[in-house]
Amino acid sequence: MSSFPPNVVIREVGLRDGLQSIQTILPTERKIEWIADAYAAGQREIEVGSYVPAKLLPQLADTAELVAYAKTLPGLLVSVLVPNLKGAERAIESQADLMLVPLSASHAHSLANLRKTPDEVIAEVARIRAARDAAGSKTLIEGGIGTAFGCTIQGAVDQTEVLRCMQGLLDAGADRVSIADTVGYGGPAAVRELFGKARAIAGDKFWCGHFHDTRGLALANVYAALETGVARFDATLAGIGGCPHAPGASGNASSEDLAFMLADMGISTGIDIPRLLLLREKVAQWLSSETLHGALWLSGLPKTFAHSSTATLNA
Amino acid sequence: MSSFPPNVVIREVGLRDGLQSIQTILPTERKIEWIADAYAAGQREIEVGSYVPAKLLPQLADTAELVAYAKTLPGLLVSVLVPNLKGAERAIESQADLMLVPLSASHAHSLANLRKTPDEVIAEVARIRAARDAAGSKTLIEGGIGTAFGCTIQGAVDQTEVLRCMQGLLDAGADRVSIADTVGYGGPAAVRELFGKARAIAGDKFWCGHFHDTRGLALANVYAALETGVARFDATLAGIGGCPHAPGASGNASSEDLAFMLADMGISTGIDIPRLLLLREKVAQWLSSETLHGALWLSGLPKTFAHSSTATLNA
Repeated sequence: MSSFPPNVVIREVGLRDGLQSIQTILPTERKIEWIADAYAAGQREIEVGSYVPAKLLPQLADTAELVAYAKTLPGLLVSVLVPNLKGAERAIESQADLMLVPLSASHAHSLANLRKTPDEVIAEVARIRAARDAAGSKTLIEGGIGTAFGCTIQGAVDQTEVLRCMQGLLDAGADRVSIADTVGYGGPAAVRELFGKARAIAGDKFWCGHFHDTRGLALANVYAALETGVARFDATLAGIGGCPHAPGASGNASSEDLAFMLADMGISTGIDIPRLLLLREKVAQWLSSETLHGALWLSGLPKTFAHSSTATLNA
Repeated sequence: MSSFPPNVVIREVGLRDGLQSIQTILPTERKIEWIADAYAAGQREIEVGSYVPAKLLPQLADTAELVAYAKTLPGLLVSVLVPNLKGAERAIESQADLMLVPLSASHAHSLANLRKTPDEVIAEVARIRAARDAAGSKTLIEGGIGTAFGCTIQGAVDQTEVLRCMQGLLDAGADRVSIADTVGYGGPAAVRELFGKARAIAGDKFWCGHFHDTRGLALANVYAALETGVARFDATLAGIGGCPHAPGASGNASSEDLAFMLADMGISTGIDIPRLLLLREKVAQWLSSETLHGALWLSGLPKTFAHSSTATLNA
């Protein structure tokens, strides 16, 4: 049987994928408190926002301030989402450590959400790479392939198209590529197959898995991806997020449940789970009008849980 | 990488493990409607109740009536839980197809819940086997090893003790053995390891995995167990059940979410998921004062879901 990676990074995307999907607009000082507490709990990669026009996503209008704050925390890898060259220029200017450029493998979803075809996104990534290099910037470029297991508009998405897009992103100069199950259509057998192929193509440039728990399979999907050697996963505290096409449905994989699963598997994440649960309580108060998710906050850690597993990876 | 079993049975235990854990006492006619609808949706193994004294579990006092009804459905494997020889005699008398005898691998939990040591339960299984054979009965005996990943009283439970109990049950004459994570302490790496060893000992007599979603890991655990070749899982509609030590926490693996995961993996269960979701709506009305679980009922099936996968296994 497959072995598992000894260390796994949980990239916190609650401040971006989480907050952009809910109504509550969290004030900047609370987001800063969230970042500070997540850092104190051992999280070392955080996607703090998106460089998109504030009129489109007022929830994320303070992204530049958050990048500036997050950059003050030693050893924190600060990510932002950028939809295009204009956003990338802001990411480069603010010295974000990584910018994620989303691509929808679903042609229909791509046109509806990004107003570009997948190939136009690939061409934009080439322009972003040129701009990054011209600026002498160190900001990493991650091509994130969404709707990789199908989408609510187009329905099925072929694996071959996902892998073609991935190769296109790499050829265009992406430093990293990732795969996202944007709408929670994927199950663990499909994940194991697609992630295995993706790793075979991209090797260590295959960076991250992003799963939504829309149909309860996020953690099973992480487990399947772990077996292919993938060692980085997006997740959101309290599983916030969700899908506009499935109101009330579960959101992203929950950071705290994922941290528990990994710790239970003997995989080091550097996360102090009790501290993360305290942060969850705080965020739950801030987002008291929103539906939150996850299971661990209700049950607590098992009596058998070894608190020594809250190792200080990346500390 | 491991292959998966082509067919998997979801044994519905909502009428036993689910109903015994909640306050609402469901009238017999509704339980019969549940069994009838589950059968119509393709479920072919149902644990309908427990032969325990009605004063202990008034929710399950009508078990004999339910066995009698369930036995009228062609091809349905009718299970009951029996805590001791007295219960087993009732199961034999009512011609249940299978009786599950619970054993707690946690010595402390065993004394607290069953008032017997694990070895005393093994001795009781030997008496049950003798009684079954003396009666010329065909009722199968399943030894179900609970708290196999630890428990809330004792804490850690050694794998070696779980496997020793399993061998003891087989030696005492159990036809089948199963493993249960009674309190949701297990994660997928531990499941893969323990189930792999259990299968190596018991072979095809290893019958069933039983997971609680207390910490959100039930489906990841099923996936890990599938990789060891186990092809039968307990689950409850709407994930009812739960743990008295974690009020409000998630219950058993949800039958409908599990059915979706397996269908998505191309594994046949014989279950018509849309019909099962209709039954869930009905049960949710009956149990309107209870906390229900699961994700699929909120999100619905993906647009890409092949309804032809609702094959008629065992029909």
